Amino acid sequence: MEPRVSLITLGVSDLERARRFYEALGWVRSKASVAGEVAFYQAGGSALALWWRERLAEDAMVQAAGHGFRGVALAQNVRRKEEVDQLLADAAAAGGVITKPAQDSPHFEGRSGYFADPDGHLWEVAWNPSFPLGEDGSLRLPD
Amino acid sequence: MEPRVSLITLGVSDLERARRFYEALGWVRSKASVAGEVAFYQAGGSALALWWRERLAEDAMVQAAGHGFRGVALAQNVRRKEEVDQLLADAAAAGGVITKPAQDSPHFEGRSGYFADPDGHLWEVAWNPSFPLGEDGSLRLPD
Repeated sequence: MEPRVSLITLGVSDLERARRFYEALGWVRSKASVAGEVAFYQAGGSALALWWRERLAEDAMVQAAGHGFRGVALAQNVRRKEEVDQLLADAAAAGGVITKPAQDSPHFEGRSGYFADPDGHLWEVAWNPSFPLGEDGSLRLPD
Repeated sequence: MEPRVSLITLGVSDLERARRFYEALGWVRSKASVAGEVAFYQAGGSALALWWRERLAEDAMVQAAGHGFRGVALAQNVRRKEEVDQLLADAAAAGGVITKPAQDSPHFEGRSGYFADPDGHLWEVAWNPSFPLGEDGSLRLPD
């Protein structure tokens, strides 16, 4: 795993309310956003995402109402499809728990899975060609 | 507020276990870390921090056992001390809830406060001269 955070996804119960809040504070919504579905914001070499809390839980294959779900997930995007499986295997070997085995994504062209760290913090590992990575690993959204 | 995330702090119940997990995955601990207290890792232009969950809750002035605490906080570090108060005021005006009014920090030379976004996600706003910011707003830890 490289020491990078590609995305920080905050689960929200009202996407329009969340979007208005961050935009009132000066965050600029990327064209990668999908109205009513998800909002993306460039944040330096990472991105902030606002997504329905239930959808995030479902995507990570954890219970939205479960004691452990925080409504937050970090993501590391990788350069090659095979790296998704490898990084998840590395995380399991290090003591993480795979909540979603690597699989082709229903949400975008790509492949992803999730692990939980020893305290239950969720990480998605994703290969997503529509979000290109710079040489330094930074993620660049469409404006 | 600038569209940047300076720090992602994950609250942990066993700092050594969490540290070993991330370091097994290749994260390199910064010299800014304090053994037994907090571990910092450079992550592109941001940093990941592992901190005791109860200390994080205490710092944000929220209940660690409370329904709403997720054990996660984002932070935006600012360039000037006065910006802490201004950004918290902006967040409150936009509909955020101030959980900790701006105050000089007991943890480092600087000033900070916290707000919760409309879904309860915590953000610290911090002025911390020991973590310098680049011109592009990136945060650079000591190696």
